[in-house]
Amino acid sequence: MGLQSFVEVHPESHFPIQNLPYGVFRPRPGSEPRPGVAIGDYVLDLSVIAAHGLFDGSILKGSDCFNQPNLNKFLGMGRPAWKEARATIQNLLSSTEPKLRDNASLRQIALAPRDQVEMLLPIAIGDYTDFFSSMHHAKNCGTIFRGPENPIPANWFHIPIAYHGRASSVVISGTDIVRPRGQGHPIGGSPYFGPSVKLDFELEMAAIVGPGNELGKPIDVNEAADHIFGLVLMNDWSARDIQAWEYVPLGPFLGKSFGTTVSPWIVTLDALEPFACNAPKQDPHPLPYLAEKISKNYDISLEVRIKPTGEENSHVVTKSNFNHLYWTLTQQLAHHTINGCNLRPGDLLGTGTISGPEPESYGCLLELTWNGQKQLSLGGTTRKFLEDGDEVIITGCSKGNGYNVGFGTCSGKILPSPI
Amino acid sequence: MGLQSFVEVHPESHFPIQNLPYGVFRPRPGSEPRPGVAIGDYVLDLSVIAAHGLFDGSILKGSDCFNQPNLNKFLGMGRPAWKEARATIQNLLSSTEPKLRDNASLRQIALAPRDQVEMLLPIAIGDYTDFFSSMHHAKNCGTIFRGPENPIPANWFHIPIAYHGRASSVVISGTDIVRPRGQGHPIGGSPYFGPSVKLDFELEMAAIVGPGNELGKPIDVNEAADHIFGLVLMNDWSARDIQAWEYVPLGPFLGKSFGTTVSPWIVTLDALEPFACNAPKQDPHPLPYLAEKISKNYDISLEVRIKPTGEENSHVVTKSNFNHLYWTLTQQLAHHTINGCNLRPGDLLGTGTISGPEPESYGCLLELTWNGQKQLSLGGTTRKFLEDGDEVIITGCSKGNGYNVGFGTCSGKILPSPI
Ligand SMILES: [Ca+2]
Ligand SMILES: [Ca+2]
Ligand SMILES: [Mg+2]
Ligand SMILES: [Mg+2]
Ligand code: NI
Repeated sequence: MGLQSFVEVHPESHFPIQNLPYGVFRPRPGSEPRPGVAIGDYVLDLSVIAAHGLFDGSILKGSDCFNQPNLNKFLGMGRPAWKEARATIQNLLSSTEPKLRDNASLRQIALAPRDQVEMLLPIAIGDYTDFFSSMHHAKNCGTIFRGPENPIPANWFHIPIAYHGRASSVVISGTDIVRPRGQGHPIGGSPYFGPSVKLDFELEMAAIVGPGNELGKPIDVNEAADHIFGLVLMNDWSARDIQAWEYVPLGPFLGKSFGTTVSPWIVTLDALEPFACNAPKQDPHPLPYLAEKISKNYDISLEVRIKPTGEENSHVVTKSNFNHLYWTLTQQLAHHTINGCNLRPGDLLGTGTISGPEPESYGCLLELTWNGQKQLSLGGTTRKFLEDGDEVIITGCSKGNGYNVGFGTCSGKILPSPI
Repeated sequence: MGLQSFVEVHPESHFPIQNLPYGVFRPRPGSEPRPGVAIGDYVLDLSVIAAHGLFDGSILKGSDCFNQPNLNKFLGMGRPAWKEARATIQNLLSSTEPKLRDNASLRQIALAPRDQVEMLLPIAIGDYTDFFSSMHHAKNCGTIFRGPENPIPANWFHIPIAYHGRASSVVISGTDIVRPRGQGHPIGGSPYFGPSVKLDFELEMAAIVGPGNELGKPIDVNEAADHIFGLVLMNDWSARDIQAWEYVPLGPFLGKSFGTTVSPWIVTLDALEPFACNAPKQDPHPLPYLAEKISKNYDISLEVRIKPTGEENSHVVTKSNFNHLYWTLTQQLAHHTINGCNLRPGDLLGTGTISGPEPESYGCLLELTWNGQKQLSLGGTTRKFLEDGDEVIITGCSKGNGYNVGFGTCSGKILPSPI
């Protein structure tokens, strides 16, 4: 790999100059939120770079898109602006460019150590949608809930199935999650009520929408990639007992809406392009509005660890890969708009739980413990579902030739229910 | 009725001084959106009233809450602010108060004829939730889709069932609705794809949330009313063919997300208080977190008319009443937060289709034509589902002693699908 930064980047870092993911941070407690880009152990403060006139390309020159508390304005500007920003930042950080490298006072204000800043939700989320695009996950859930005959509903191979999620409870990695209370199936007469006893994680990723579309004007599947800025890791926390009792006939509601965690860094599709791979063959052939010329997945290794309270170490509970998805991001987005539904910059499109074919690659405890029928080993202890104090840590990374393009972590710890 | 305004109000008007509903409007094309209150055939411009220092109560004095493009800030201030605003505005508009009555130049800028202003969506909607709270609607839908044995799912009498809706496609009354395209059940091998052939309206009302709650901190059912500002009329347009094919197992998605229409005027709970009535007896008794000390509905007459393209007249297709709801607004809100889900000012909580017990009071064409099995007469023509050019007009009104507290209309016209 030729390209190198003057900022030191450890070989194992997720954030070399080839990545340059976007986030929003506060350099000090109380200071204004602003966009930044991760480089090694640092954040590059884009508001400072903009204030110094270093975004000098034709699109970003004079723009206030980096003088905002979130990335929505930048997202709405589209791929030409994103390409220009990436070129400018990659040049500025490269080992051969003196502008920032040799300006100690600018480096001092433009580069903040990542372990000293506070990361915030990088986008204002207008709507959050969650898809259901892993065939293995659909098959396992169907088998668990409806039996082994026809576990996958008839519509699944024709439609990238999805539901509307709750936008208000999407939180940034590191936010504690309070165990939800709610109703479960009646055992005797009255339904169970109390803290969920089947609290689960769901290993997901989510696309961040760039430019949206007008109500009534669908986006063509072959142009859908221009409406996707990048990806984050996502944990769609799920209370299986609440979900199972409430979801007929209108789908998941309180079983999901108590919290959804996303990672702070948005890795752009441009940075992921070297890791593009073919999406799975689709049989039956999709309808014309979903039949795309190039059907692309990405090779992103995913891992979930659980760290029980008081323990030193976390334990790997599953390893999966983004490329297990059956429906592509672009098919999801085209389907979402085919009825005329309008997307807006900053909308969050979850992939659904990313399960692979092998039991070690299942993306949630529901599948890993087969709805609590077996125990999952965590070193010295075991789990059927999550316990209070458990921290769930998702990581994701693509391995390049001598570098990584990674997502960092997406984590959250379970707090007990209020009494 | 003693209280009268110096502004002339026709006896049939929905907007006498007893009502004072809130909206957001532009007095002239291109001018800034601002909050207003309807009075007779006029809108009172609250930004003008505030600028003239006429909000002189302890809470609103000096506040910029009426110098905003939406009502969210005012909504977040809670009932004490709402009570103070209502008292101030009611006094200012009363026939015995000279401040505005006798100030011609102030009247000139503060009161705009309603037929000359543009009404806008009065709130920025963070999340839109739609409930399913009419037992008659649940029973009819269940019978149509799953047969007459056990039409109502077992959970329905324990849970105010709901799903997350799409916030981006909520539009103001008068906005045209493009007929959605999408998939329907396969007839031969491949699913149907094309314009929906089962386009429907749903007669609903929706609560507008005032102060929200922190994530992880549920709202007690007996305090829930303080979190509800008021109500609007709502038409939850639905494509029954798309919905029927997509909704297993995650609920409605594209069958609903192409458009949801709300009326421009938010009628406050304070104005509706004279029309409060007992909610239906609930059997089985709700769980403690849903068992409220006072269980309140409102007597609001609702009517839906359809006006086919080119016709002079619209035809009444159903008459219903808000008081047919089984679950109350406060139970809906308490249930929504019991898992810790956070609400925010401006959230929209739809009631679900409001069907009464008699066939003439069913709230959607699915029920009125029994899923297209019979024709509905519209004077000279008939309908099974909506046709291009049809305008659907919802009205709602509570009849007081010599005055109305009304909602105006909530209307939308169907445009053909794009080719
Ligand atoms: Ca999910
Ligand atoms: Ca509805
Ligand atoms: Mg969630
Ligand atoms: Mg709708
Ligand atoms: Ni939403």
